[in-house]
Amino acid sequence: MKFNQNDRDTLLNLLNWRRDVRHFETTPIPNEQVDQLLQAIELAPSVGNSRPWRFIKVESHEIRKQVYQNFAASNVSAADIYSDDELQKYNELKLAGLKEAPLHLAVFTDMNPELGKGLGRQTMPETLLYSTVTAIHNLWLMARSLNIGVGWVSILNPDKFNQIIDVPEDWQFTGYLCLGYPKFDADTPELHEKSWQKNVKTNWIVR
Amino acid sequence: MKFNQNDRDTLLNLLNWRRDVRHFETTPIPNEQVDQLLQAIELAPSVGNSRPWRFIKVESHEIRKQVYQNFAASNVSAADIYSDDELQKYNELKLAGLKEAPLHLAVFTDMNPELGKGLGRQTMPETLLYSTVTAIHNLWLMARSLNIGVGWVSILNPDKFNQIIDVPEDWQFTGYLCLGYPKFDADTPELHEKSWQKNVKTNWIVR
Repeated sequence: MKFNQNDRDTLLNLLNWRRDVRHFETTPIPNEQVDQLLQAIELAPSVGNSRPWRFIKVESHEIRKQVYQNFAASNVSAADIYSDDELQKYNELKLAGLKEAPLHLAVFTDMNPELGKGLGRQTMPETLLYSTVTAIHNLWLMARSLNIGVGWVSILNPDKFNQIIDVPEDWQFTGYLCLGYPKFDADTPELHEKSWQKNVKTNWIVR
Repeated sequence: MKFNQNDRDTLLNLLNWRRDVRHFETTPIPNEQVDQLLQAIELAPSVGNSRPWRFIKVESHEIRKQVYQNFAASNVSAADIYSDDELQKYNELKLAGLKEAPLHLAVFTDMNPELGKGLGRQTMPETLLYSTVTAIHNLWLMARSLNIGVGWVSILNPDKFNQIIDVPEDWQFTGYLCLGYPKFDADTPELHEKSWQKNVKTNWIVR
């Protein structure tokens, strides 16, 4: 299989227009599209083909409420390190779309997966987590191609998540995703637009 | 920006034909293509827009030799957990293309980056590492669209890497990538083909 310039342009467009979305419409995502997301997850790389990602659709209102409370408390604590203008700016940022997003995914990594026979992860077991992150990123790009927005919420106390979601102790909480149709599109990060942190160029380092 | 079915088909093809490559031609990758990979890295998501990824082109033969020795020693130790048929199978697998790949990238994560003002990473500092992983995955997909193969080597002792590559102590070694034109294409993982670990279906879990 050889890819061409049209394919590269499409990929570059997807990368350019993929955003961390926090402003969602409440319109539900059809099941057919949700399953296209699963198809993308399946195609992620994983260390030793261990496929350690665990994706949980959080439908329970009670669990969603606990996640929101966890976020709200963590966000109040997080604001503590800022003062004056920065604190005001922080508090004006919308950092999650938990209340509006129709689809919530809690993502864990099985740190002791049956598959893969341990290959590739003896010296760097964190590659299990990295495998899950590539699965999330596959989902993110597939979502963007379906014009669905994804927001990754990390202002959370991870210690409580295995209990909140009710999953085994050796699954490590990796991320919480909000999905839905976005209120608007953008080709630059919201934190850049809102002058929290401008984009800064990456350069190769040579040794 | 709205994406359509053609765009989704292109993405799905890229995900289907992206592999972890260990069989490389030695033909060098032109600079223009190497810089297209950097363009993809730049477009990765990062927690608080902290852009903590550090990509080092390893050109020094002396450093490459040390990396290979690190891999060879780690691989001998890794084989210790297998016996009989499994050991034989393990030893027959080609797990890295370090000797042939023309481009080597050592990837680190700055765990105390200047950018982002700490936003989003107080409770989950590992999101810095996850940001770097999404940058690696952007590079991986862009490489595939350029018909360049990427192999992620994780059978390495990470403790020695800051010294080997000569980077600051608060940069965490995240991965070592081999890049080059692949000897062949495939739409299924080599570990599946070689009967080490078959693909197993992922399912949604519901709560």
